[in-house]
Amino acid sequence: MIKTSVFVATSLDGFIAREDGRIDWLDAAQGMVPDGEDCGYQDFMATVDGLVMGRNTFEQVLSFPQWPYGELPVVVLSHQAIALPAAISKTVTVTAESPADLLARLAAAGRQHLYVDGGKTIQSFLATNLINEIIITVIPILIGTGKPLFGALPQDVQLAHVRSRCYDFGFVQHHYRVLNCSLNATNQSPI
Amino acid sequence: MIKTSVFVATSLDGFIAREDGRIDWLDAAQGMVPDGEDCGYQDFMATVDGLVMGRNTFEQVLSFPQWPYGELPVVVLSHQAIALPAAISKTVTVTAESPADLLARLAAAGRQHLYVDGGKTIQSFLATNLINEIIITVIPILIGTGKPLFGALPQDVQLAHVRSRCYDFGFVQHHYRVLNCSLNATNQSPI
Repeated sequence: MIKTSVFVATSLDGFIAREDGRIDWLDAAQGMVPDGEDCGYQDFMATVDGLVMGRNTFEQVLSFPQWPYGELPVVVLSHQAIALPAAISKTVTVTAESPADLLARLAAAGRQHLYVDGGKTIQSFLATNLINEIIITVIPILIGTGKPLFGALPQDVQLAHVRSRCYDFGFVQHHYRVLNCSLNATNQSPI
Repeated sequence: MIKTSVFVATSLDGFIAREDGRIDWLDAAQGMVPDGEDCGYQDFMATVDGLVMGRNTFEQVLSFPQWPYGELPVVVLSHQAIALPAAISKTVTVTAESPADLLARLAAAGRQHLYVDGGKTIQSFLATNLINEIIITVIPILIGTGKPLFGALPQDVQLAHVRSRCYDFGFVQHHYRVLNCSLNATNQSPI
């Protein structure tokens, strides 16, 4: 049984980045966060044994001064080949599999909890009922336009609210469980 | 000094209605709400002395079996004339004023707290820094497409999170104050 989670920050109007990819508004907000407060990120990361992201997110992460995921296996969804830097070639793989095929393969390989990241990747997993839980940290700002967390869906996605946590510095973190996720079916193959 | 508030329900992906205006998902969710629970609506309404809405919202409200606002003065923003039913002609007025001109006039007339409703109306007030507080009740569903609560903005809108309330039936209500609202300036004319 494999589980998939989204863990992401958005503006109150639901954007994960500006149209051009900038997250200056998020960086500015992070500046208000007390040292050592990571809004549950490390605790969350300790529960996952794999990360799935799209090509855009991967290229953004590659631009960071340091690869932030250590030994965690990372799968990049891309229909184009990607030349991987040697330093991460042991933990990063690239695939053009569909979300369902990828999850079936990772579940068969014993993976238990995947972190699904990146707007388009999250949207494609949600559209195919392959997300179990959504953890959103809402930053107290409206940016008006940008890259949205959510996208079009072939059907409504029913959620259950699990909990919300309010931080003194204005962030609010919401935890939802997806009720009609196909990965919830306990008596069936996970896909 | 006049104050303006938004009090609205949205899906988690930020829609107030489907593309065609239907709110079947909201009605279905309301069916889970215990009798007598209105998520603070009556308490909120007791604090307002006027309501501003757009033509679309007005026409939707008109389709209800009964006019829900009693004696509360309602202003409908419309560039076209609207024939008002006699039963509400004493409390409803129609204007083509800009949000700023309307607020200046209502403030001069002694109004203190306006409820601003309807997607486009809320967006036009936010875009011109004329909203003080935003109270959003998030319904635990993703509907994928629809009429969004928020829209494009000429600049970021900075918010302060005031409180959130989680209901047992899965709704979460968030209360934000708008930090760069031009109505906040205490030493100046309200507009």
